[in-house]
Amino acid sequence: MILSHGTLTFPAAPLDTARSMMRDLAAQTRTEPGCLLYQVSENLETPGGFIISEQWESMDAMQVHLNQPEVGELVEKVKGMGVNDLSITAWSAGEATKIM
Amino acid sequence: MILSHGTLTFPAAPLDTARSMMRDLAAQTRTEPGCLLYQVSENLETPGGFIISEQWESMDAMQVHLNQPEVGELVEKVKGMGVNDLSITAWSAGEATKIM
Repeated sequence: MILSHGTLTFPAAPLDTARSMMRDLAAQTRTEPGCLLYQVSENLETPGGFIISEQWESMDAMQVHLNQPEVGELVEKVKGMGVNDLSITAWSAGEATKIM
Repeated sequence: MILSHGTLTFPAAPLDTARSMMRDLAAQTRTEPGCLLYQVSENLETPGGFIISEQWESMDAMQVHLNQPEVGELVEKVKGMGVNDLSITAWSAGEATKIM
């Protein structure tokens, strides 16, 4: 399984627009093969900051997602809205521990 | 490194109170030994839903955090506020891939 943590900050864009875009991305992505979890959330400490939490069956499945033209277009769109810190890192998941 | 993803939903509590508690938890936890990342965020699709994204140097460091009395007290407090779905899973991180 793949775990991914992504962050981006909209410095000035209308946040309602950003929220709507993030919700649409999440709803679409969860329909894609191999997507186990895709949650979009708003950082409580960073105004305009959003977090993308992903889980995928495999890196292949995540790459199919990333290679879609729509994803590239969305990346360009948010850059055009002033986002210049988009960062996503994925890890292969090792041993899991259920904490609570 | 340890990666952790946690979720909880406040079904009815005043969300400003929940947000403030989550922010305080994050600020405190980031001062603890071995804490690499501790972000609290609000799920854009789940009213009252919050996400805790954590990275720790080791499971030992995370366990020291979890074993603090203050953490247990906070868990009991949020349960008293109606949270009945608190879920946290941690994984040892395997190979990392910088996606963006």
